[in-house]
Amino acid sequence: MKKVLVVGGVAGGATAAVRVRRLDEKAEIIMFEKGPHVSFSNCSLPYYLGRVVESKEKLVLMTPESFKTKYNIEARVNQEVIRIHREEKTVEIKNLETNEVYKESYDVLILSPGANPVVPPFEGVNLPHVFTVRNVADIDRLHQYVNQSNVERIAVIGGGFIGVEVAENLREAGKVVTLVEYSPQIMAPFDEDMVQILHKEMLDHGIQLIVGDGLKKITENAIELNSGKQVEAQAVVLAIGVKPEITLAKEAGLEIGELGGIKVNANYQTSDPSIYAVGDAIEVYHRLTHKPTRLALAGPAVRQARAAADHIYGQKTNNKGVIGSSSVKIFDLNCAVTGLNERAAKEANIRYDSVYVIAPDKVGLMPNSNPLHFKLIFEVPTGRILGAQAIGKGNADKRIDVIAALITMGGTLEDLKELELTYSPMYSTARDVVNIAALVGLNILHADYKQVHVSKVRNLVEQGATFIDVRENHEFESGHLVNAINIPLSELRERVDEIPRDKPVYIHCRSGQRSYNAVKILQHLGFTNVYNVSGSFLGICLYEYFTDVTTSREKIVTDYNFK
Amino acid sequence: MKKVLVVGGVAGGATAAVRVRRLDEKAEIIMFEKGPHVSFSNCSLPYYLGRVVESKEKLVLMTPESFKTKYNIEARVNQEVIRIHREEKTVEIKNLETNEVYKESYDVLILSPGANPVVPPFEGVNLPHVFTVRNVADIDRLHQYVNQSNVERIAVIGGGFIGVEVAENLREAGKVVTLVEYSPQIMAPFDEDMVQILHKEMLDHGIQLIVGDGLKKITENAIELNSGKQVEAQAVVLAIGVKPEITLAKEAGLEIGELGGIKVNANYQTSDPSIYAVGDAIEVYHRLTHKPTRLALAGPAVRQARAAADHIYGQKTNNKGVIGSSSVKIFDLNCAVTGLNERAAKEANIRYDSVYVIAPDKVGLMPNSNPLHFKLIFEVPTGRILGAQAIGKGNADKRIDVIAALITMGGTLEDLKELELTYSPMYSTARDVVNIAALVGLNILHADYKQVHVSKVRNLVEQGATFIDVRENHEFESGHLVNAINIPLSELRERVDEIPRDKPVYIHCRSGQRSYNAVKILQHLGFTNVYNVSGSFLGICLYEYFTDVTTSREKIVTDYNFK
Repeated sequence: MKKVLVVGGVAGGATAAVRVRRLDEKAEIIMFEKGPHVSFSNCSLPYYLGRVVESKEKLVLMTPESFKTKYNIEARVNQEVIRIHREEKTVEIKNLETNEVYKESYDVLILSPGANPVVPPFEGVNLPHVFTVRNVADIDRLHQYVNQSNVERIAVIGGGFIGVEVAENLREAGKVVTLVEYSPQIMAPFDEDMVQILHKEMLDHGIQLIVGDGLKKITENAIELNSGKQVEAQAVVLAIGVKPEITLAKEAGLEIGELGGIKVNANYQTSDPSIYAVGDAIEVYHRLTHKPTRLALAGPAVRQARAAADHIYGQKTNNKGVIGSSSVKIFDLNCAVTGLNERAAKEANIRYDSVYVIAPDKVGLMPNSNPLHFKLIFEVPTGRILGAQAIGKGNADKRIDVIAALITMGGTLEDLKELELTYSPMYSTARDVVNIAALVGLNILHADYKQVHVSKVRNLVEQGATFIDVRENHEFESGHLVNAINIPLSELRERVDEIPRDKPVYIHCRSGQRSYNAVKILQHLGFTNVYNVSGSFLGICLYEYFTDVTTSREKIVTDYNFK
Repeated sequence: MKKVLVVGGVAGGATAAVRVRRLDEKAEIIMFEKGPHVSFSNCSLPYYLGRVVESKEKLVLMTPESFKTKYNIEARVNQEVIRIHREEKTVEIKNLETNEVYKESYDVLILSPGANPVVPPFEGVNLPHVFTVRNVADIDRLHQYVNQSNVERIAVIGGGFIGVEVAENLREAGKVVTLVEYSPQIMAPFDEDMVQILHKEMLDHGIQLIVGDGLKKITENAIELNSGKQVEAQAVVLAIGVKPEITLAKEAGLEIGELGGIKVNANYQTSDPSIYAVGDAIEVYHRLTHKPTRLALAGPAVRQARAAADHIYGQKTNNKGVIGSSSVKIFDLNCAVTGLNERAAKEANIRYDSVYVIAPDKVGLMPNSNPLHFKLIFEVPTGRILGAQAIGKGNADKRIDVIAALITMGGTLEDLKELELTYSPMYSTARDVVNIAALVGLNILHADYKQVHVSKVRNLVEQGATFIDVRENHEFESGHLVNAINIPLSELRERVDEIPRDKPVYIHCRSGQRSYNAVKILQHLGFTNVYNVSGSFLGICLYEYFTDVTTSREKIVTDYNFK
């Protein structure tokens, strides 16, 4: 009879324990959790703040009792595994309620300790109104604290998934929320062009957004930033990031990887073959960069846990590595991303190009048809799809899941172009935005025409480049680039003489489709130096949102009807 | 200068014409449409009846004027192409307004005539209150007619996409609607187990649903069915199916395929290389059955049109055939399907198996979390994915689009199991329903355990087979199979002696997950003849919906909380 110990519950640990039971009815399985809850919905924690989840009890998915009766698994809560004795195959456990320390032996040990919030030694970091969010107890403390009548202003430090979700939920609960992010943008998985939509969404919903500035110190009623700026805050939430919890593994002499996570082989065994490790604490292989990476995501944790359990029982695993897919709702926007963004592709020294397409998420005359912003990254010259980002009020996660499937299967732009997706006017268009992106990508890959990205527009405008705006007059009049020439597509053929042939010409419309037609017309008429502005006017305005090249923020919002 | 004529507008014709223009600014392009509208949203027509689309003008997407100004394409409406003279490369056109007949020459001819509603010679079929739905004029006539005060009861004949959408929209407009389908089920792309959910949805929303009965004759105020049943109806909509419009092609001596569609080669050329054909009128290659098929879908039409235009200009096409993906909203349910269903797999003589999984569409504690019914068909013994069907209040189209991507790329259960989809509690679960289906499928493929399908349950019950219901007592008491033994999963280990070892035992719970655990436990305890009921109690009840094995329809709805 095998004795299997599991360190840590939640996604990784609980899945591993349950899978072991399915494979072996006779195994003795003990799961240790240092907190009071062995299984809770990690990713749902922020939603308790915004009252989307009505009670903290609902966050708890399984109790030790249900593990016992359903799976014959002993789940011991408030018990911290403090040491591994690899030679004698035992662990030392501290009962946090009684402080008693005892030992358990194992045949196999599965580590799923997760990751801890990063808490740098800021001045004031230990004040009682400073919080992190890792488990039900954390969120409960924060929830109780912010619901005191005198807590109105809250600062959230860190613009990653947790920071953004916490900020949103506190805002929905009626708080005045400041979100502070050290780098120039929130939500690092999105590129700087796409992320401006999210910056706008945060601002539009009353979040005080500060990017490019870091926390310096915390006082009783305020935070001070590196810039010297003071922000009033009766509560501070630190959501700066997480680091793998490797103390136990390190002390036991298990190998640690180059990124600071526990190193595992293809079967999720650590350097000690009797000890497996899964979840946020480990390093995994990235199938696109071919390098180690870390992912703090529930989906991969669950798959790793199952694979580890399978391997314990002699079943082969099929470890192809990860691509990194994630999604988040930010107020009215659905946001999803998979694979590499531009930054990651650059870092990995992969030759790539990208397209930015804005297309209706469903047939325009259906209720709630909205533009979906979609960015596709592909390898040059193969056209292999590397990543995608989607943001909109509609079904962004669908589009990204489709791209995730294609990336996993090694799909190319040609595959995506031909992809036969379901179509109903309620759900999409006959040629879905992902198909359109593939068509545009193929045009770029085969140099059928040239594009510039919205991030280059400001410089070009300042250098006096020639921009042709092919929208209709009334669209042009409601707001446009400085010095742009307005020649509606419908008049282009007859007014072609107004366009200079001796210098580069940059064409845009609202979303990039009419300008693409204009570019093709001009090419056929012998123009050799014509560029389409990828993302077009919608993209330009979003990109320039904070910097006001042509107009003020309020004016952009009003004129261009972003809402 | 090339002269390109296009017969038929809408998806196929208009796309081909526009693509030709992008490739060739100088070509002369004329598009002929016999109706008054050259470009309209075909798939949105039924939504005008339900006032989802508020005006018929909105259904029209592009006018002849906009084709002229934007694309320099001449779109001639109310002009019917009545003959092709292949030797002299001309067509004869009849101006339906003036009855004048004239000729146009072509270098290339593109046929996109679409498909016509099937109208068998029923008695009364030509009465003025009998309608078909093919274009804006049709839907306008129907809309005007049913909005007369004396039209309250409407019969829709045919339970395919159009029939169902028309029935739904008329019902939403307050009409008493009877939907008549000749075969035993509506919506043929769904298998008989899955489709019961749709039958229920139609009934729950007040549609008078009649399946397994056909139209015999139409009188002024009623229809009569083959069974002799009379149904009062002041209007009748025929949505029996469509047949390819091949008159022109046939008369011109172009080759017609075995299924009655225009035969084309890989480049969408007909047997005359100067004549291309695209859209609903042609036969296409099915990449899973490797046989010709017909598809009346906008997505493939648009791709074919582009490919044809590309080929005219010397670009290679990449014709991998079709898999057939479609989706439809039916009242509160989103429904989508891709690839082969069981019927199609059988017809194609492909060895397959299937799994039926019911899982939450998002994390259970999030608002609007609902069960998603998901069926996956895979090849035996390779595990290659052949098709899928999804129905639920949540994001069914997402799951099917992911499967469509996998099918296109030749993906297997193993690929689907590992598929790294985006996860946020708002959109899905850490292990999405599609991943779960792959895990169950692999278990079945590798004979890790055995399953029976819900369609077999009735016979087994009647033969006195042993059913163990492992739901909790209170679930069991609110409704259960006749003679089922209730042993909750949590009591299974201690009550295992109550289970017979000398005969087959069939285990079910609510959705199939607890019963899977029970099956594994029993297997480990030496039981060799244990089956999991795929789809479990939810599936059984839905399947038995019309036949009332254990209880009446009302009781099922009340007890089992299907709503």
